[in-house]
Amino acid sequence: MTLIEYRPEPGEFCWTFGGAPPVRKVRPGDVISLWTEDCFAGKVRTERDLASQVCEFPFLNPQTGPFAVEGAKPGDTLALHFVSIEPARDTGAATTLPFFGALTSDAYTATLQDPLPELVWIYELDNAKRTVTYHAKSADLTIELPMDPMHGTVGVAPPSFEARSALVPDNHGGNLDSPEMRAGVTAYFGVNVEGALFSLGDGHARQGEGEACGTGVEVAMNTVVIVDLIPGVMTLWPRLESDTHLMSIGAARPLENAYRVAQVDMTGWLAELCGVDRMDAYQLVAQAALTPVAQVCNPVYTVTSKMDKSFLPSLSAYRDTHTKLRELGGNLSL
Amino acid sequence: MTLIEYRPEPGEFCWTFGGAPPVRKVRPGDVISLWTEDCFAGKVRTERDLASQVCEFPFLNPQTGPFAVEGAKPGDTLALHFVSIEPARDTGAATTLPFFGALTSDAYTATLQDPLPELVWIYELDNAKRTVTYHAKSADLTIELPMDPMHGTVGVAPPSFEARSALVPDNHGGNLDSPEMRAGVTAYFGVNVEGALFSLGDGHARQGEGEACGTGVEVAMNTVVIVDLIPGVMTLWPRLESDTHLMSIGAARPLENAYRVAQVDMTGWLAELCGVDRMDAYQLVAQAALTPVAQVCNPVYTVTSKMDKSFLPSLSAYRDTHTKLRELGGNLSL
Amino acid sequence: MTLIEYRPEPGEFCWTFGGAPPVRKVRPGDVISLWTEDCFAGKVRTERDLASQVCEFPFLNPQTGPFAVEGAKPGDTLALHFVSIEPARDTGAATTLPFFGALTSDAYTATLQDPLPELVWIYELDNAKRTVTYHAKSADLTIELPMDPMHGTVGVAPPSFEARSALVPDNHGGNLDSPEMRAGVTAYFGVNVEGALFSLGDGHARQGEGEACGTGVEVAMNTVVIVDLIPGVMTLWPRLESDTHLMSIGAARPLENAYRVAQVDMTGWLAELCGVDRMDAYQLVAQAALTPVAQVCNPVYTVTSKMDKSFLPSLSAYRDTHTKLRELGGNLSL
Amino acid sequence: MTLIEYRPEPGEFCWTFGGAPPVRKVRPGDVISLWTEDCFAGKVRTERDLASQVCEFPFLNPQTGPFAVEGAKPGDTLALHFVSIEPARDTGAATTLPFFGALTSDAYTATLQDPLPELVWIYELDNAKRTVTYHAKSADLTIELPMDPMHGTVGVAPPSFEARSALVPDNHGGNLDSPEMRAGVTAYFGVNVEGALFSLGDGHARQGEGEACGTGVEVAMNTVVIVDLIPGVMTLWPRLESDTHLMSIGAARPLENAYRVAQVDMTGWLAELCGVDRMDAYQLVAQAALTPVAQVCNPVYTVTSKMDKSFLPSLSAYRDTHTKLRELGGNLSL
Repeated sequence: MTLIEYRPEPGEFCWTFGGAPPVRKVRPGDVISLWTEDCFAGKVRTERDLASQVCEFPFLNPQTGPFAVEGAKPGDTLALHFVSIEPARDTGAATTLPFFGALTSDAYTATLQDPLPELVWIYELDNAKRTVTYHAKSADLTIELPMDPMHGTVGVAPPSFEARSALVPDNHGGNLDSPEMRAGVTAYFGVNVEGALFSLGDGHARQGEGEACGTGVEVAMNTVVIVDLIPGVMTLWPRLESDTHLMSIGAARPLENAYRVAQVDMTGWLAELCGVDRMDAYQLVAQAALTPVAQVCNPVYTVTSKMDKSFLPSLSAYRDTHTKLRELGGNLSL
Repeated sequence: MTLIEYRPEPGEFCWTFGGAPPVRKVRPGDVISLWTEDCFAGKVRTERDLASQVCEFPFLNPQTGPFAVEGAKPGDTLALHFVSIEPARDTGAATTLPFFGALTSDAYTATLQDPLPELVWIYELDNAKRTVTYHAKSADLTIELPMDPMHGTVGVAPPSFEARSALVPDNHGGNLDSPEMRAGVTAYFGVNVEGALFSLGDGHARQGEGEACGTGVEVAMNTVVIVDLIPGVMTLWPRLESDTHLMSIGAARPLENAYRVAQVDMTGWLAELCGVDRMDAYQLVAQAALTPVAQVCNPVYTVTSKMDKSFLPSLSAYRDTHTKLRELGGNLSL
Repeated sequence: MTLIEYRPEPGEFCWTFGGAPPVRKVRPGDVISLWTEDCFAGKVRTERDLASQVCEFPFLNPQTGPFAVEGAKPGDTLALHFVSIEPARDTGAATTLPFFGALTSDAYTATLQDPLPELVWIYELDNAKRTVTYHAKSADLTIELPMDPMHGTVGVAPPSFEARSALVPDNHGGNLDSPEMRAGVTAYFGVNVEGALFSLGDGHARQGEGEACGTGVEVAMNTVVIVDLIPGVMTLWPRLESDTHLMSIGAARPLENAYRVAQVDMTGWLAELCGVDRMDAYQLVAQAALTPVAQVCNPVYTVTSKMDKSFLPSLSAYRDTHTKLRELGGNLSL
Repeated sequence: MTLIEYRPEPGEFCWTFGGAPPVRKVRPGDVISLWTEDCFAGKVRTERDLASQVCEFPFLNPQTGPFAVEGAKPGDTLALHFVSIEPARDTGAATTLPFFGALTSDAYTATLQDPLPELVWIYELDNAKRTVTYHAKSADLTIELPMDPMHGTVGVAPPSFEARSALVPDNHGGNLDSPEMRAGVTAYFGVNVEGALFSLGDGHARQGEGEACGTGVEVAMNTVVIVDLIPGVMTLWPRLESDTHLMSIGAARPLENAYRVAQVDMTGWLAELCGVDRMDAYQLVAQAALTPVAQVCNPVYTVTSKMDKSFLPSLSAYRDTHTKLRELGGNLSL
């Protein structure tokens, strides 16, 4: 097992999935200890740092990567196991942005109304206590929320010669903004180009479902990820596996289509894993799957379908990759 | 406290919210022990009972009620506390229906494709073991799922002189199909007409989020509900309170609008309860609310916004109605 | 032929489709000369009359009717031929309303933003010159637009024991707000209840497609309509026939579903009229149908599918009802 | 004036907007006489050529270009005036494709249903008679439709370092599929990268609104276009100008958002051109704009907002570029 340490220099970030040369070559089985900058490129650190003033479009949501995976080719599946995702600063920032977010009109849900006020909330992060502390601006109210670190953005180069902004999710992953992308989870992505070219970023110390205001509690992250490859197995939409759940993520608009994509993918996955036909799998999904909304603020929305593994017969997804990587991850002393 | 027992005769069911005379008059504080028929009007009991053949449109989703609440008038809020919701039969039915459900085209998402096959799954229900047992049709697979009984349909007469089919949800409640409508929960509805005229039905022994196939595990229910009234307090969209969560339910299409309605309502509710302005409440919702999809199959979709009460300062919603009714319910020996 | 003259008294308006007793009984072949009030119940007559102040919810969009049609029963089709639709006042009003309209957030596309300003534009109407004159408020700009009078709201009682607000369109018609509902056109509606119970209102001296601000140029109308019945012929969605076009109107959210409903209906209609299968009709629709947006402001949106009759072989829709009524209408000297 | 003739070799096509080097450099004022292949890369020529078999994904919708425009830089507007668009073959093909089109489930509106049959209709094109002839497959029905040639796909390189598939429309243009993109029209696109890098393709001999089956009558085209640049003028969404109309095209999902984007853009444009504020312009749009659906089949949908110039005071859009290019085009003898 090779341990690769990588902390991008300021000029090394990547702003798209696809269209950028790899920063490192890695091999299946490699462990990468890396650092990701926050979605504001580190420029929002106090309540006075308004993103619309301090950030420079389109230099938003910097990605660490891409990493080229030796041997990965279209038709394979890339597995990324998150050993740890830890906030790298002791504060995180959440903001409203003009015409961005779920509870405001935006560039696509276009109206003639004025934007909401642009505000910044600074949260204190305590990695030891595992808390994320909110302070109201309009009253004396402080609330400790559980820390639940995650990567909002993880993905591979898309198909069809495309390069997609790191702000957008689709079947290549990207800006999925699902709180399920946390430590202990294995993420699966279909490989579209030689080397897969994965990258990641957009750490959140936590976020609510839907990422209503347009951001989570944004923070740089120290992350350890194990890379693996499942050759000859195709994956159409991003999937996750934790110790407790199988998950499919759908990305589409309107939001019911994100739901449909995730549930159709889960239906196909269960049919295959459980050895039943699609109508039987549909029935199981209908009565047992959970479907939290991931985000309703990016150009394309996302919903996660979650199936409790304890409901299912013993099964092996992706050749037991999650079990294997979970064990590897547990044995690392980083 | 008055205990009212009510089991509708076959001809007594109600098929709309609004437009039907009350079957009983009740008073705030009354306890109603009632029985609800399943959404198929009890006609789907074996795998051979296809709803398209045995059910007679529009006699679907029979409601028990409406009950007129003494003193209720527009501008008040009706509180319904569910003391218990227990399956009244030892099997439940889930079906696919031609052009109905989330993973098929339907009357509104109209396509030229053929419908999915119409199938019935019969689940065994064990109230003692709290299990709901699924049997695959295409393979030898049996799965025990946790029983989690709920009412898919609860609501009051709508405003604007409307009478709405019991198949439709909107701000009057109706066919919300949220799994959160379970025992131990208090539901709040704005009163639109004198007497509120609430009814309920559509019991599910359990359902997945989104009710993907168009039904939960449908079953008749024995339900005990305590009725209460909060005079002079308006409620715009259905709200729920459990021991652990505050919840708002939004009903709209597309699904992002159901999300928006639920989250905007939760934002306003938190602003009021926590004494902060709307932007502060928005931020709290953005980082802390959960938003499970309720259903994506009815003519209007539903999403629930859930806020963990343990995150919040001590607060009193609706004059502590939930706490009061919860205690009352706990003292009942039915 | 019987000529019925009907001008509702102030207390006689109807606010729903379904749920109201008929104001008159009519027979197939009868000619009705009637008057409709505007959607503001006549209360917005100057720029100072803000609907949010002068109108009383839910007394919006008063309908003239319902009329019971002798012999009409479920499974039949009601035909309404518009002989003439003429503005009954010399000014019309168009307004913005808080949180209502296509280019603002609304009750369902809920955001936390402030509403747009509430404004009234008074248009001069000249029935002789056929003009509708706009005056800008912020500059010295006057524009004469062509008069094109229409009824925004026409429909029958809905199925399933429902009563629907006159503000809502669906398969029973209602608040369709299609500019195609003009003089010279025959509208077809499926009958859902004995007597059909049709009503109409919401006259516009003209409107743009989509009714973006939430209203057309609203005005009371003097309208002459011939009633007819096509027994034993079902109609699923509202259809129109003019001398030049066949039209189907779909009502749904999101807007693509209104498009789909209209186009699927047109596909089925053409398949039947042209004697081709559905795939051939689909192809014809795909290359030849026009699909103007009708409105994007009501609780349910509408799109019209229009097929140019000159493209098609000679055909007879609804037993040549339009041709017959058109001739009858032409012979009337009113 | 320089006349550039360009007919791409088989290997010279471009499959994305952005991410490809220019095939030619041109200057403002240049006239380009070019040839575009059809969306099937010329491989569907008979009823037996099923695209799913003869086409190779992602080599669909080949674009002619990109052309680099000398001096074009971000913040400028590119003008493309279509002098002529003429079918280059005497047949065109329209097809259904599995899970593609408006009246079927697709990759995003995902369902578990079977696809519609895959079929090819071959149309005869007569450039002299200006007809496009349809033949039904299931009956003896032949219909002559008016020829109305257009380019479904025209656009520039997108912003944010993206490269977008030629199958997708967005604010850079791309696969807009609006029948308004016909000869005599000037199209305006905001420049996002040095040289603008525009390309075009996807000729249709005609199409219905919405492109319901997923294709128009697809055919190679001989096209003459005049290139111009309006420095220092930004354009957010694609706009068109004909002798009779100003047009804005919105691209978004759901379809109401495409409508909103187009109408908000038209509102801003009219406010600027007519010297009124946005509320006055909104009112004018609401009563006078037409909004035909362009397409409901691509990954992002499109709607066109059309304003009749005869309604408006005399005005000059984009420094009279359309008038100037129209005259230039009329003087060409090609």
